[in-house]
Amino acid sequence: MSDAPQPSDVAPPAAAEPWVSEPEYRQGAIDLLGILAYGALAAFDRLAADARLAPTLPDKVHVASMAALQIKHFESVRARLAELDTDVMEAMKPFHVPFNEFHAHTKPKDWLEGLVLAYVGNGFAADFYREVAAFVDADTRTVVYQVLADEGHADFVVEKVRAAIGADPRVAGRLALWGRRLVGEALSQAQRVAADRDALTHLLTGTVDRPGMDLAAISRMFSRLVETHTRRMGTLGLQA
Amino acid sequence: MSDAPQPSDVAPPAAAEPWVSEPEYRQGAIDLLGILAYGALAAFDRLAADARLAPTLPDKVHVASMAALQIKHFESVRARLAELDTDVMEAMKPFHVPFNEFHAHTKPKDWLEGLVLAYVGNGFAADFYREVAAFVDADTRTVVYQVLADEGHADFVVEKVRAAIGADPRVAGRLALWGRRLVGEALSQAQRVAADRDALTHLLTGTVDRPGMDLAAISRMFSRLVETHTRRMGTLGLQA
Repeated sequence: MSDAPQPSDVAPPAAAEPWVSEPEYRQGAIDLLGILAYGALAAFDRLAADARLAPTLPDKVHVASMAALQIKHFESVRARLAELDTDVMEAMKPFHVPFNEFHAHTKPKDWLEGLVLAYVGNGFAADFYREVAAFVDADTRTVVYQVLADEGHADFVVEKVRAAIGADPRVAGRLALWGRRLVGEALSQAQRVAADRDALTHLLTGTVDRPGMDLAAISRMFSRLVETHTRRMGTLGLQA
Repeated sequence: MSDAPQPSDVAPPAAAEPWVSEPEYRQGAIDLLGILAYGALAAFDRLAADARLAPTLPDKVHVASMAALQIKHFESVRARLAELDTDVMEAMKPFHVPFNEFHAHTKPKDWLEGLVLAYVGNGFAADFYREVAAFVDADTRTVVYQVLADEGHADFVVEKVRAAIGADPRVAGRLALWGRRLVGEALSQAQRVAADRDALTHLLTGTVDRPGMDLAAISRMFSRLVETHTRRMGTLGLQA
């Protein structure tokens, strides 16, 4: 995504850094991959349901293709986890509940809400994963960036949502509310994950032996996420 | 699929045969590709819904991967249609109704019915498309055979269904009935397509200028389809 924030507060560790083999560090990378794998499956399910709501057959094909792409992402993450001697099913376990709750609380009522969820919700999550990925080993980071590459869905959503607002400006108010709710739900689940998964949190904050973000840096990271989110809502013609 | 019938009554036409550029012949090939494209989208939708019914996460991943594969098939067919200067959306139009009706009449009640539908229903359809493909040009035939290649779903279904029957033999009666209903519904929709799409029917029967199957050959083709269907049901431990 061209408008993704560029994590810049701390230089990413090189693979040769001594802490890469540290068990907690390794667990953090596995957690990140587990999130991405389960997130891809959840997104597949969501997009496949969205495809059913598509107003035209070309729209359906586009969204079904996006769903299929999630399975390709899942396979890349599974392969990287296998290189780390970890079964993808194990790695995903801690994240079933937060993802299932997020999706249970954010069922789109219609096609447009589904599009906004795919763009705003997934965009926000992807930006955050990219921030975390700055702290994992280079091979894992490459896989994460590949999986998070947008591949043209953003343009599709922007075009459809702007056209819908053009046709009926009242749509904008409803979708703006929806976008805010999505980010609220995402933050609430992220908080739960942060509280449960020390290894993941410590990737960001570092440990005694390993550099990480201090509180000021974490606060700057959140500012970047919110700014990008606001820009993304603006691109859709919505107020953040 | 290793147990697919090998169409053998008439040698397939070589690409150099004079009738390949005949408009009706060309339309028959486009119809076959249109069926495959819409069939792939319908199968995507069905399999994505089946994935939600999966009893375990590995099962869900398997079925979601099969769904994703349908989109790859759709893309291959779209590319071949583009080579024939035909838009896939146009080519699919005549087949929306029969596929939608088939799927509306055969909604699986549970995970096992979904598996049997995927194996028995799609297997039967694939065998028939393979028979028709014997009469199209070599490049189209290659695409059709690729799209119809099974890629391991059969083994998955056979294992799961046999295990379910092993655990509760009463399941076999219910699934056998379901398998028969699926073939009945498939034949009823096939009949409708045959009545509507002369170009497709004439691929099989030939025309004054082009060889095809005579009535005896068509009857042998149906025998082959039914035999393979019976063998497939037997593999599942079900009576055809």
